[in-house]
Amino acid sequence: MGKVRAIITMSLDGYVAGPDQTEENPLGVGGEQLHEWMFPLKVWRESHGDEGGEVTASSPVVEGWWENVGAIIMGRNMFGGGPGPWGEDPWTGWWGDNPPYHVPVFVLTHHEREPLIKEGGTTFFFVTDGIESALDQARAAADDKDVLLAGGGEAAQQYLKAGLLNEIQLHVAPVILGGGVRLFEGIGPGEAKLETMEVVESPAVTHIRYRVSR
Amino acid sequence: MGKVRAIITMSLDGYVAGPDQTEENPLGVGGEQLHEWMFPLKVWRESHGDEGGEVTASSPVVEGWWENVGAIIMGRNMFGGGPGPWGEDPWTGWWGDNPPYHVPVFVLTHHEREPLIKEGGTTFFFVTDGIESALDQARAAADDKDVLLAGGGEAAQQYLKAGLLNEIQLHVAPVILGGGVRLFEGIGPGEAKLETMEVVESPAVTHIRYRVSR
Repeated sequence: MGKVRAIITMSLDGYVAGPDQTEENPLGVGGEQLHEWMFPLKVWRESHGDEGGEVTASSPVVEGWWENVGAIIMGRNMFGGGPGPWGEDPWTGWWGDNPPYHVPVFVLTHHEREPLIKEGGTTFFFVTDGIESALDQARAAADDKDVLLAGGGEAAQQYLKAGLLNEIQLHVAPVILGGGVRLFEGIGPGEAKLETMEVVESPAVTHIRYRVSR
Repeated sequence: MGKVRAIITMSLDGYVAGPDQTEENPLGVGGEQLHEWMFPLKVWRESHGDEGGEVTASSPVVEGWWENVGAIIMGRNMFGGGPGPWGEDPWTGWWGDNPPYHVPVFVLTHHEREPLIKEGGTTFFFVTDGIESALDQARAAADDKDVLLAGGGEAAQQYLKAGLLNEIQLHVAPVILGGGVRLFEGIGPGEAKLETMEVVESPAVTHIRYRVSR
């Protein structure tokens, strides 16, 4: 069976989203700073259909996100913001016609909705009956490959707390947000045992991969 | 002029001491886990008069703590626990007759006390009029060398918040404490700007050195 891996950027003060999150600004105030390390990268730009960009020590890390991935889970805000529930002109997400995923994506939401088929092998499925159900469905879709939890912060927090992650890759950004959603909030001592697997130094962010067990 | 450098171990959930700190247990519940990476090291054991120990990627990091240091600042709990204020049988600290510092050490406290002269060049001075005064005294004693803020957590938090640090070396331990003193508590966005200087991977801890400015 594949692993369940989470990838997420955390500020130095432990936040994975800033304060005052809204549907229009799901990263909260200042939260966009978390991802600034990513946007100049060639690998990121290419996966979003843009040209140019840098190659740094972070490039192979980002390339590694998609290795051996058979299905993806993400929170509702990660799929796409906008007025909810789905309304008359339903949002089709942040990701355009050809999202960079190319595998089934299971979106955690409270609102039922038909699957959304995109180009390039990405289909969004909307899961309303909780994180364990989403994981079961993702595992079935992934076959023996990994399930990637792509964020956002609350989803990562929930899966970690439920003991459902095998690996977590933190991108620690030298940013102070001063408030928001903390990745490790409400997780007591002994609820997760972490072991360092790999550290990658990059100018704008430090990548640390942990094995997680209970 | 030398730099003001802080060194401190932080848990993955952002704590530099566990919950329920007391004078007898200044690291709080579970807080000793923060420093477990350090104790097996040969360089640590030698500095405390013990033989044996390991050499790992953390060894040069620990050796680097003392490089170019002219004076040290530490919190009261870091100097030594026990019944306070000083009483009839005053505590002489955790550090024995020949502490590993070999420079003047300025201890932040609320209780006045005469300087305590130890062997090997270490003298503890007790500063009751605040962190800026302690820094002024340490700078004067350090000449052009660096001032090292050796902990504990509250002192580091205070100096960071006051914008008095030039560098902070975090030892990020893969430990979840679930409560206690957070290094970055109460520090708002923009109150400290951090830039990654160096990352060192070690099995039991990740060392990240940041340049700090405002």
